[in-house]
Amino acid sequence: MVAERHPQASLENRVADVAGLPAAARVADKPITGPSAAEEALAGLLSLVADDFAACNRAIVARMQSPVALIPQLAAHIVAAGGKRLRPLLTLATARMCGYGDGDRHVQLAACVEFIHTATLLHDDVVDESSLRRGLASANAIFGNKASVLVGDFLFARAFELMVRDGSLKVLAILSQASATISEGEVLQLVTQNDLSTSEDRYLEVIEGKTAALFAAACQVGAVVAGRPEEEERALSAYGRNLGIAFQLVDDALDYAADEATLGKTVGDDFREGKITLPVLAAYHAGDATERAFWRRTIEDSEQTEDDLDYALACIERRGAIPATIDRARRYAAAARAALAPFPDTAYRAALLAVADTTVRRAR
Amino acid sequence: MVAERHPQASLENRVADVAGLPAAARVADKPITGPSAAEEALAGLLSLVADDFAACNRAIVARMQSPVALIPQLAAHIVAAGGKRLRPLLTLATARMCGYGDGDRHVQLAACVEFIHTATLLHDDVVDESSLRRGLASANAIFGNKASVLVGDFLFARAFELMVRDGSLKVLAILSQASATISEGEVLQLVTQNDLSTSEDRYLEVIEGKTAALFAAACQVGAVVAGRPEEEERALSAYGRNLGIAFQLVDDALDYAADEATLGKTVGDDFREGKITLPVLAAYHAGDATERAFWRRTIEDSEQTEDDLDYALACIERRGAIPATIDRARRYAAAARAALAPFPDTAYRAALLAVADTTVRRAR
Repeated sequence: MVAERHPQASLENRVADVAGLPAAARVADKPITGPSAAEEALAGLLSLVADDFAACNRAIVARMQSPVALIPQLAAHIVAAGGKRLRPLLTLATARMCGYGDGDRHVQLAACVEFIHTATLLHDDVVDESSLRRGLASANAIFGNKASVLVGDFLFARAFELMVRDGSLKVLAILSQASATISEGEVLQLVTQNDLSTSEDRYLEVIEGKTAALFAAACQVGAVVAGRPEEEERALSAYGRNLGIAFQLVDDALDYAADEATLGKTVGDDFREGKITLPVLAAYHAGDATERAFWRRTIEDSEQTEDDLDYALACIERRGAIPATIDRARRYAAAARAALAPFPDTAYRAALLAVADTTVRRAR
Repeated sequence: MVAERHPQASLENRVADVAGLPAAARVADKPITGPSAAEEALAGLLSLVADDFAACNRAIVARMQSPVALIPQLAAHIVAAGGKRLRPLLTLATARMCGYGDGDRHVQLAACVEFIHTATLLHDDVVDESSLRRGLASANAIFGNKASVLVGDFLFARAFELMVRDGSLKVLAILSQASATISEGEVLQLVTQNDLSTSEDRYLEVIEGKTAALFAAACQVGAVVAGRPEEEERALSAYGRNLGIAFQLVDDALDYAADEATLGKTVGDDFREGKITLPVLAAYHAGDATERAFWRRTIEDSEQTEDDLDYALACIERRGAIPATIDRARRYAAAARAALAPFPDTAYRAALLAVADTTVRRAR
């Protein structure tokens, strides 16, 4: 058990990391709206695969080594320094739920999933010109954009090397396709940036690509390593896909949920970048002429003054855009739960259901 | 034959593209030093695999499609708009030399090789902040750095999707390892930038990674698809590796070879970027105190004025740094030729020998 090897505080921090929540989250814990439900669900999942998770973390550190010292240095900043490990955790838990036995394929492939995710984060931060990630200086801010692009490439290539070593063409097919889909989602997001004529369907395409594709692949791989029938692969892929969409919808809501600022989530990043997300689309479409003009100026023309974020938050509040977004997320979370119906009632299944359930409760 | 489908001029242009030489190269043709030997060698190779090459170009265009329109638009700018196709040409020619039969695996894998190369070019231009590539505006200059990073990611992922479709774990192993090695070489280049204490061995590590690894993989894949013994795989890998090193050495020489400016190669890019290449190292180590101080100011401290390039070229001339670099390239080209010894004397082998021979003759 991990708890035997690490002091309790360390475990808690890692759980907070898994939940994508900084330590401040727990300090600011609130009785009703707080992150504790989501935290507890992830802690529950983690406790079921604690040894696998520890092995996966070791594999991640071992596999990011290179004779070129800057590579592990930069990778360590983002990979080893904690951060969410939600995607590899899903691979580990789905593999176990599917009865995967004694090997460590699920551990190695979970590390591959995390490498692909990390590569996209490194490139995202360059693309978004972010200076912060998880409340810390982003890799590009410390090491520069150039190193972030190249180390992202390295981790991506390394992920494929590890998959080849695993030897399953099916896994390679799932994760190479997911990788292409992620890039398509990211490019589509770039194209829709600053464009208020983006339809909700287009927005959903973006988050299906940039977020849900890897969630889906991470879960499907669990069934593949366990040698389960394609029907179960499809069910787990559907679970991951719907969970990923719900997760991203909540993330996009939190970017405008000012009263959640204490949770460590930076408010207003998407607004400043002119990203088209559901809260903005909902507020824009429900807004009056003044509000629409405001959104066009700030999002389409990228003309923003200091007070604009407050006004944007007020518009979003007035038009009920956050509840609308969360309600949408809730429906995807329900679909994720439903996708697990074919599986027997195990502790793994219960934990995965709880993760889907509580993802939505990260926001009000 | 290609010549039947295309007018002769088109073939010539494509040959010039393959050789990485703009049309100006032919206009400025010189009787002794000119590019025509290298051009002719590539034309010879191309004529042997003309149908395969045409099929590869069709595969490249077909496989870079995506519902996200910006992806083929940007990819077309760099992939379809000509440019060298030396690496896929090597895959096609080595496969044929090895007696590969009726299938089109070599064509599809040659396209994968070009996608990986293109992805690295897109990321290189972002990393180098280049505004020109092959004399045209670079993709990042037109479409922006963000799109270049993301479309590079897409092409890389798509290459792996196509390799998975091919189904050879051996090919996947070769090209995933080459991809990781390329990134390592690129990161190492970043680390050595502006550092005159870089050893020649380190510089060779950089070009072995960033250039020679993909040349080696492109050639090895030819033996793999033809089902040849590992000995031949290794021989072709050695041919590609040595050819790649020679090729990059010549490229690095051309960056300081002012009298070759008419060949369309921009002079001084590496100098302005503070890249550590063999011409600089040779001139620095052979230079007097004044020259060393000059190199330290311009390369290490990145303090450059308008006249500095001329002085750098004069130092390089005075210290014989270009002949020294070309001499080194000649030795790698000879090693490349030697690596082909085990193969029977065919037109393919003769053409590959000629390519190695004439690569060095791109410079004086």
